[in-house]
Amino acid sequence: MNLLALLDLASVFVFALTGALVASRQQLDIVGFIFIACLTAMGGGTARDVLLQRDEVFWIANPIYVAVAGTAAVLVFFTAHKLESRMRTIIWLDALAVAIAVPVGVGVARSLGAEWPVLLMMGMVTACLGGLARDVVCNEVPLILKARDLYATAALAGAAANILVYEVVASRPFAALAAGLVTFGLRAGSISLGWRAPGYRHEPPRS
Amino acid sequence: MNLLALLDLASVFVFALTGALVASRQQLDIVGFIFIACLTAMGGGTARDVLLQRDEVFWIANPIYVAVAGTAAVLVFFTAHKLESRMRTIIWLDALAVAIAVPVGVGVARSLGAEWPVLLMMGMVTACLGGLARDVVCNEVPLILKARDLYATAALAGAAANILVYEVVASRPFAALAAGLVTFGLRAGSISLGWRAPGYRHEPPRS
Amino acid sequence: MNLLALLDLASVFVFALTGALVASRQQLDIVGFIFIACLTAMGGGTARDVLLQRDEVFWIANPIYVAVAGTAAVLVFFTAHKLESRMRTIIWLDALAVAIAVPVGVGVARSLGAEWPVLLMMGMVTACLGGLARDVVCNEVPLILKARDLYATAALAGAAANILVYEVVASRPFAALAAGLVTFGLRAGSISLGWRAPGYRHEPPRS
Repeated sequence: MNLLALLDLASVFVFALTGALVASRQQLDIVGFIFIACLTAMGGGTARDVLLQRDEVFWIANPIYVAVAGTAAVLVFFTAHKLESRMRTIIWLDALAVAIAVPVGVGVARSLGAEWPVLLMMGMVTACLGGLARDVVCNEVPLILKARDLYATAALAGAAANILVYEVVASRPFAALAAGLVTFGLRAGSISLGWRAPGYRHEPPRS
Repeated sequence: MNLLALLDLASVFVFALTGALVASRQQLDIVGFIFIACLTAMGGGTARDVLLQRDEVFWIANPIYVAVAGTAAVLVFFTAHKLESRMRTIIWLDALAVAIAVPVGVGVARSLGAEWPVLLMMGMVTACLGGLARDVVCNEVPLILKARDLYATAALAGAAANILVYEVVASRPFAALAAGLVTFGLRAGSISLGWRAPGYRHEPPRS
Repeated sequence: MNLLALLDLASVFVFALTGALVASRQQLDIVGFIFIACLTAMGGGTARDVLLQRDEVFWIANPIYVAVAGTAAVLVFFTAHKLESRMRTIIWLDALAVAIAVPVGVGVARSLGAEWPVLLMMGMVTACLGGLARDVVCNEVPLILKARDLYATAALAGAAANILVYEVVASRPFAALAAGLVTFGLRAGSISLGWRAPGYRHEPPRS
């Protein structure tokens, strides 16, 4: 199992935790936890693999991912009530999962010979679509739409960092590390320090 | 036309009825009925075929499915007002459609040589994603999220029953029958007798 | 670059404008604008290409589409506040984008040798799914569900017009023109003159 597969496994696990936590807010049963956990954990990578027409979707080629997501869901099912603030936990775990998923998306696309605009898009697709599906299905305000937070921006910057570092040092691990650090750093700064990109903030006529 | 294709046709028809009934709650015109009916009826099977990278998506290989879903939509367009309770009809027809779709999903995956974790997932994907798309698009609370109802659980149990029976008797029709009965039985017990899986029910801090 | 690719480019640009305008109603930052613009602009065509199992998804084969959608998003980011009514602009631009996308969907399916039911479906898929994704993700009432407006109906009629004209004169440009005019004409009549298809309008028991 290579670096990309390991990182994919990690992002599946952490995304599954966030999915199960959102499921706990909906009072689902244990299979419902697993369902939402799988949707969240596999959603982004599945879109990436379908779009890139990989030989096989990653979790069909290797069902270990399903087992990992299911384990995360069961874990949350029995422990979520101990958390002090589920929403806060969801936001931070989601930031971690996004930071891991960005280099996976870029790396998979690179290994298939894609060019840089596609690398950027696949970093964002892999990192953002799982959480987006989770929030849309569970009728939460998508984290990616939380006004003025860095989210898509953090993912895009991480993907760009990955591409730049790889251009310079041609090392996959360093490129992945750079992507993870940039993404998580920006997202963390946004969550805890209120960092913002200049947002669109003219008086909204809402008409 | 083999058993799987026939069952797929049946689930497309019944899912299309539920989609059109939801469309009637939104006061759409007849093409709107057909659109939502097709989304509901073809959604799950399409996801399954794309994920499994089948040679062709089932309704593109054979447009009869589109015709069947459209017919169901037209039927509902002219008769929905005669129903006493549309929501109740939607719930029961959806239960029937899910029960038919589970063995189709498992069967298609099996015919492509997939292993059992993938069989389980494809049973759930085929059975659950069409109704989920219907509810998300039409802004209804997804049936799969109705707190404490058996839904994903019923589909998963049905898929497991299919796999077990097939292991024992190696008969596709019996395996399909077992899957349908288990899924519908659990769902029906949940709807009419209030059967529940142990749900997550600790005081939700909702924060 | 042939006629279909050019039309696809035009529909991507116009759909991206609508996506960015919806993003402006959500007060996102500039990358959020680009994200929603790409989702809207590429959503329908991506679904079409995945369903038809084209050799490559159009915007992966040629990243110019991503650049065009991004440019449209940036343009809107700096100018949206000058609009008198964003909602009205969104509705009209969306009508234009749908009218352009219908012949693209039909044309791509035809170039792959699909039969007429699939041509009809692909016209609708290409034209309707991007805007639907935009509205579902941004928690707007999907334009396609606005009760009693012609939307899916306009797309379906446009696709049918394309097929008929192509049968008669075997000219791709004329068929595309007919599709665009019929779709936009019906949609425009619906928006400004209140044209309706007979809708389902029995007293809704909402139960």
